[in-house]
This record gives sequence, C-alpha cells and structure tokens, in this order.
Amino acid sequence: MARVVESDTVPGGSDVQQLSLDSIRESLIRQEDTIVFSLIERAKFPLNSPAFEDSSSLTEFFVREIETIQAKVGRYENPEENPFFLDTIPHSVFPTHKYPQVLHPKASSVNINKRLWDVYFKELLPLFVKPGDDGNYASTAASDLACLHALSRRIHYGKFVAEIKFRDSPHDYEPAIRSKDTEALMKLLTFEKVEEMVKKRVEKKAETFGQEVKCVSGGDESEKKKYKVDPYLVSRIYGEWLIPLTKDVEVEYLLRRLD
Amino acid sequence: MARVVESDTVPGGSDVQQLSLDSIRESLIRQEDTIVFSLIERAKFPLNSPAFEDSSSLTEFFVREIETIQAKVGRYENPEENPFFLDTIPHSVFPTHKYPQVLHPKASSVNINKRLWDVYFKELLPLFVKPGDDGNYASTAASDLACLHALSRRIHYGKFVAEIKFRDSPHDYEPAIRSKDTEALMKLLTFEKVEEMVKKRVEKKAETFGQEVKCVSGGDESEKKKYKVDPYLVSRIYGEWLIPLTKDVEVEYLLRRLD
Repeated sequence: MARVVESDTVPGGSDVQQLSLDSIRESLIRQEDTIVFSLIERAKFPLNSPAFEDSSSLTEFFVREIETIQAKVGRYENPEENPFFLDTIPHSVFPTHKYPQVLHPKASSVNINKRLWDVYFKELLPLFVKPGDDGNYASTAASDLACLHALSRRIHYGKFVAEIKFRDSPHDYEPAIRSKDTEALMKLLTFEKVEEMVKKRVEKKAETFGQEVKCVSGGDESEKKKYKVDPYLVSRIYGEWLIPLTKDVEVEYLLRRLD
Repeated sequence: MARVVESDTVPGGSDVQQLSLDSIRESLIRQEDTIVFSLIERAKFPLNSPAFEDSSSLTEFFVREIETIQAKVGRYENPEENPFFLDTIPHSVFPTHKYPQVLHPKASSVNINKRLWDVYFKELLPLFVKPGDDGNYASTAASDLACLHALSRRIHYGKFVAEIKFRDSPHDYEPAIRSKDTEALMKLLTFEKVEEMVKKRVEKKAETFGQEVKCVSGGDESEKKKYKVDPYLVSRIYGEWLIPLTKDVEVEYLLRRLD
C-alpha cells in the first residue's frame, strides 16, 4: 500500500518534509486494521487477570523490559511512538534514523499512556475477552503489548492531527490556546460526522477480519455469523475511548503549540 | 472462539490432558489468521534489509534480547513455543504455569528455527514486501518478530500433529521410525488433499483480511480489488515453505518418538 499522498508525505516515512491531512487520514485508516487485528489476537486468551492486576505484575515487568530493548533499537526516535514506562529513554545502540521534525518540540511531553494503561486493563479488556484464567500469561502479555502499542500509536497520532489542523487555520486556534480554553479547542477539533463514519468503518472491519473464513465461499450465508470480537464493541471502543483520548491528546498538544 | 473440542482439549490450555485431532486442526486453522495478520502488518514497511542482513544485525540483537525477556516471563514453558537463539533458557522470574506433558520428552530438541530464520529473510520476505529502505528499523524488527513467532509456532506445531498421528496408529509408524526411513515417514504424513484445502483457505483469508474495508458496503464490486499482501503469495508461502517445514518437524519428532 503506497503511503505517499501527492507530493506530500507521511510522518514516519524517510523522505517526509510536510504533513498533509490526506496522509494523516490514510495512516489512521490503516491503523484501524492494526487495532482490529490486535484485539482479535488478544481475544484468543481469557482475561488472565493475575498477569496484570498487581502493581508489580508480570505484564508490567514485561512491558518495561521490552520498552528498554525497543529503545535500544531506536523505536522512540520515531515521533509516532510513545513509551508507557520509560522516564528517560536509553540511547539506541544502533545508528538511528533521522525522523523529520514536523511536530512542535514540546510534543514529546504529551503522553497519556498511563491513562491508557488503566483504561485498557480496567475497562476495555474485560469487554472483549472471555473471563477466566488459562495460565498462559507470557503469550497473553505479548498480546496485550501489541494492543497497547496499536492503541497508543492511534491516540498519540492526535499530535499530528492537531498540528495539521493548526497549520491549516492558526487564527482559529490561537485565541483559544492563549486563553487555555480547553472547551473551545475541543469544539474546534470535533467533527461528529467524521466520528460516526470511523465508528461504522471499524465495526465493518471487525466483521470482516473477525469472521470464520471457510474454504468454499458462499452457500452458508444463512448461517449465523460468529465473530472473534463483537463488531459493535469495537465501534464502542472507538466511540467511547479511542476517539475521546485522541482528542485529549490533540488539546494537550495545542495547549503547548505556542510555547 | 471456544477452543475446547468435545471433552478434548488443546495444547497450551490450562485443563489439557489429551490431544485430539480436532483440537489440533482447530488450532492450526486459527493460527492461519495470526499468520496472515502478521504478514499484512509486515507489508506496511519496505524490505529494510540493513536491519537484518549482517550477522550482528539490529534485528538479530532485537530478537535475542526479546527472547530473553520472554523466557523470564515463562514463554518457553509452553511446549508450543520454540526460541530462535536461546541455547539455555533463562528461568522465569514469575511462578510458571504447569503445561501438560503431551509430547515425548525429546520434543524440545526439535527446533528448526535457524532454518526458518534464513528462509524467512532470504526467501519469504522479499516476496511479499516492497523493496526499499525507509529507515524505520525498530518497527520493522518488531513486525518481523511477530511473523517469525507466528510461523515458528505453526511449523513446530508439527510435533503435536505427529504425536496424535502416532498415537492413532503406532503400528504404522514404528517400522519406519526404527529403520529411520525418513521417506516412508514423509509418505505416511502426507495428505495432498488436505494440503490443497489449506492452501485454498489461506488464499481466501489473505483476500478477506487484506482488503480495503470501506464504510459503505456494496456498490464498488466492479472496482479492481487491491490487497495488502497478494493472496496467491500466501498460498505459495504455505505450499512451498510452511507445510514442508511442518512435515520436516513431524519427521524429526517421530524419529525421536521411540527413544
């Protein structure tokens, strides 16, 4: 899938100089697939709460350690990636890629992963996985990390969304930023029609990617479809959590945009 | 998706005492989804060969380090998981789940991940990703690892397949095992009709999971479909690599089955 739009480019690509609303939209749409895949994969396992419910849990240990390794191969040089636990990011032991600076320098201080962590384990996970405990904690933690990464990337992509919206009409945003009027910013950033479309599309994706694919096509249309993750839940996860959290990131970013 | 079949059970589950051909088939079918998802996710990035082509590559460093962390949370207690690099497996720092011993004790010595590593980077990857280098090595390495894990699990699942086939008709297998007749074993293990069905099904899965899902359904049926990974390639990857490698694992396992 080509990610380059017109002469414009995508954050994270190698030859990126500019942002465009098209390239951002394209990335967000592609990220929906990643999120739906990761939820479907996590739903293979039951809740397995002993893996994550303590403060010194297996899952927290795992994510902390993995983030350190990922920093060592340069993951957090990419402005799309935000760590959950690293207060200081270890240097990469390999030469790092120079990502273009498209965001305001304060961007890296916008990180709501602590909130996402709580939301994910306390609210989202119990919605879409079976209750129970099968002891398979190592694989479960790896699946949780894949979900957390995909969700975190989507939410913090709000920085790019906010940047492009700001650049498109700085005069609309500047007064609200200067007066720290969070409510006004939220209003400027909200497009209900677009949100409804996203919710419909991710529901469709959950239906498509979470179905049982049989060898022979057709014929069994009358069979009641079974999905690996309830498509309506995916739509709710977007509508009640991911979209609002993304907008929170957008607001937080904009509040620092004139610093 | 319920993974329990009749009164039988699935390797890796918590209350597993027995194997059944149904439970194994169900797991292999579910693993196809995971494999197709992982290939689609990897195809977001170009080849990025500088990340993996040296012997002390970023990707090898990354996978070695990640495997060590995964061992520390008990991943390799699960007989479905086989490391790529760990010669000795570090002890888990958390209490580990007791997986039922359904395989012969020699099972853990069957590990063809070194071969899989070469096959993956030299033969498979260049088939299904775009050429090029976007510098995004950390994310690419994480995607490669997801593919490698999914492929390795599938291939080494051959141990369970071989075990159940052996238990079903030990007298068919014992002479060939005793005379180390690899060819005869391979023949006993081969069911071409089943292989053709698997290849067709994974092609269908790549079509289904790799399509662009639009918000509105129907209407654009005439549009030429674009897939994120060529479905025919996925069928070839199964037919030319995954199925043969799985059977190699089956043969290797059976050769040790009477030790």
